[in-house]
Amino acid sequence: MSIRKIPGGITAAKGFLASCCEAGIKYRGRTDMAMIYSATPCTVGGVFTSNQVKAAPVLWDREIVQNKKSVHAVVVNAGIANAATGNTGMVLCRKTAESAGNALGIPVDSVLLGSTGVIGPQLPLDKLSNGIAQMAGTLSGMQEAGTAASRAIMTTDTVNKEFAVSFTLPAADGSGNVEVRLGGMSKGSGMIHPNMCTMLCYITTDCAISHELLQKAVSDIVQDTFNMITVDGDTSTNDTLLVMANGEAGNCPITENDKSYQLFRDALGSVCHDLAVLMASDGEGATHLIEMRVYNADRKENARKLARSVCGSSLVKAMVFGRDANCGRILCALGYAGISFDPAVIELYLHGAEETVCFYRDGHVMEFDEEKAAAILAEKNVCFSCDMKAGKEEATAWGCDLTYDYVKINGDYRS
Amino acid sequence: MSIRKIPGGITAAKGFLASCCEAGIKYRGRTDMAMIYSATPCTVGGVFTSNQVKAAPVLWDREIVQNKKSVHAVVVNAGIANAATGNTGMVLCRKTAESAGNALGIPVDSVLLGSTGVIGPQLPLDKLSNGIAQMAGTLSGMQEAGTAASRAIMTTDTVNKEFAVSFTLPAADGSGNVEVRLGGMSKGSGMIHPNMCTMLCYITTDCAISHELLQKAVSDIVQDTFNMITVDGDTSTNDTLLVMANGEAGNCPITENDKSYQLFRDALGSVCHDLAVLMASDGEGATHLIEMRVYNADRKENARKLARSVCGSSLVKAMVFGRDANCGRILCALGYAGISFDPAVIELYLHGAEETVCFYRDGHVMEFDEEKAAAILAEKNVCFSCDMKAGKEEATAWGCDLTYDYVKINGDYRS
Repeated sequence: MSIRKIPGGITAAKGFLASCCEAGIKYRGRTDMAMIYSATPCTVGGVFTSNQVKAAPVLWDREIVQNKKSVHAVVVNAGIANAATGNTGMVLCRKTAESAGNALGIPVDSVLLGSTGVIGPQLPLDKLSNGIAQMAGTLSGMQEAGTAASRAIMTTDTVNKEFAVSFTLPAADGSGNVEVRLGGMSKGSGMIHPNMCTMLCYITTDCAISHELLQKAVSDIVQDTFNMITVDGDTSTNDTLLVMANGEAGNCPITENDKSYQLFRDALGSVCHDLAVLMASDGEGATHLIEMRVYNADRKENARKLARSVCGSSLVKAMVFGRDANCGRILCALGYAGISFDPAVIELYLHGAEETVCFYRDGHVMEFDEEKAAAILAEKNVCFSCDMKAGKEEATAWGCDLTYDYVKINGDYRS
Repeated sequence: MSIRKIPGGITAAKGFLASCCEAGIKYRGRTDMAMIYSATPCTVGGVFTSNQVKAAPVLWDREIVQNKKSVHAVVVNAGIANAATGNTGMVLCRKTAESAGNALGIPVDSVLLGSTGVIGPQLPLDKLSNGIAQMAGTLSGMQEAGTAASRAIMTTDTVNKEFAVSFTLPAADGSGNVEVRLGGMSKGSGMIHPNMCTMLCYITTDCAISHELLQKAVSDIVQDTFNMITVDGDTSTNDTLLVMANGEAGNCPITENDKSYQLFRDALGSVCHDLAVLMASDGEGATHLIEMRVYNADRKENARKLARSVCGSSLVKAMVFGRDANCGRILCALGYAGISFDPAVIELYLHGAEETVCFYRDGHVMEFDEEKAAAILAEKNVCFSCDMKAGKEEATAWGCDLTYDYVKINGDYRS
């Protein structure tokens, strides 16, 4: 019953095809639209941004997910967010879905939409429609098609993000076990903050699972994965996580919170974890991944808040960039997380791949080996941990350092 | 009954003396300690950081303020924060206060303390004591002495911050009106975030006012001044605002919430407002002051949260630095403030000294004159406003842009 990493992303699961194209929406000389398609109808689970200002495609998708519709396709564009576009933006969503529905021969409300890019401008419908026609004609289940799609939805991302796993479940026909696959792609680099799943993430699986349990798994897992990463504290208007399940693996359908569900949940957790950490690691301008683990906390939610507070601190982020072990800043960021704790009992550590340094204990910053600390801060992944000595709960958050390039990218994003 | 700006800072009010010295705590070739002294005992009001990790001098001062002690002096050092220093740090506070008490001939618990700088290291008592001896011997009521003190407490600040006002109140002896003065100094540039008064601010007044009303005025005013500024979202371990009143103006003591109290409150508000905006404007690496005004909100606290969310957004801050009118980011930051509102009815404006541009209305980003917007964003003070169309409440927050220099300063703060 083990979960195994396999190559690929959104086309890893049986029956899922993908394609992409150069629609010319904003970028020149690169792909900027992607399509995911399953001929077999899918159940879908999703979570969306908590921002009061929700992009039009978020409203469109949410309606479909809440009404438990079966879906066949996702159409995503990069370059323009279709956010703050008023009723015009909603009309455009319907027309885009109609265009995809016609091209693929599927109902309009089985088409999910996603957009990422600049807030404000309207999307050009003609370019979207041309793109959809092209993509409908070039769908493929090859691994390369999934990878190409994951590239097409990038904005300031520097690497594409995909991940897939395989595991086995009892077959529906009683003939032993079947292989089930789960794969996903995501994009996200700036405007990333844990208050809902972050930016765009699409996951496909051939697992047979009820809508209720799929949604439960998605809602649970997001708490410890996408909601635990932060790049800049800005919660986007477009954040979307969608998981589509078409049942083609032929497993005995998961309809109860049993062992099979637990395994599916773990597999989905591993895909979400990997995609989330990839996003934090590829934060705008980032040169380091920052990991903050809080353990022995009194409550799970408190552990989460403490860990996120550290990863979100501008001063901690700048310190990691500068490779300066000014570790009092970690303590300060824990202190303003809004959680009550006793600073006299907690302990703080800096972990490298091979060495660990304790830098705070018994209420004061310790004398520590500055050279060793500097060597750890020079590693690509910098990990801090805090022993709260207050209970048994733990949580981990991920972020990245604050660099000149973050300022450069965001001082000049539109041009 | 009008409030008039006058020159000077902490020595503007009658009976307040100041001095400073080069104690050699951290900085070489510059002053790094300051003292404020009043021979007449003062009532004192104060607010302190909400950070769970409170620096030793914060704990020391809080005890004195809560017990409504009369105070005579404040001793402040820059360079080391005396935070995360455990019991050793508290013992050092007592010894520092004893040293000042002996030098000035006043009770130990009439000495307030303040520290700012690096978190973790212990302060050198011998240097503090030598500094105190020097400063006790050079106290002066001259304007220059106050200005020099305001320079001594700077860390990454680029300008010293002081402000004073004068107003009149009925005389205690019934002989018409007397002049009352109120002046202050503050420091703060990084690790600044509105969740308590921000960094160190000391205000002196010769007004006669009861402890209860002084504390009430301080607690009220901080909500709309120091708690409305943000530089980087990091709430310090050391934030302290103290207001000392020695009564030497000879006004009829303020003991009720009457017209005199209202006037004192307005005068204190104007000093706090000015010092707070000076801090935001001098944020680490800042090239622009950002002002966000939210009006016609349903509740005061909601207006405050919305305004602070915009000033705290890394993307808004980077946009102002880049002078790129990517105004959807303002809307996005309002959206994740945690306040419920209807994005279809609000209106957003960008204000220059002479021109105003509406960039969002009726649910979508407007076509606006990019050239005019770029010209406004090139001004030193950039002001945004939002008409919530939901009520009568308003609030203003202040922040600064996010620049390469912020990253530089904080990647390399200790060295």
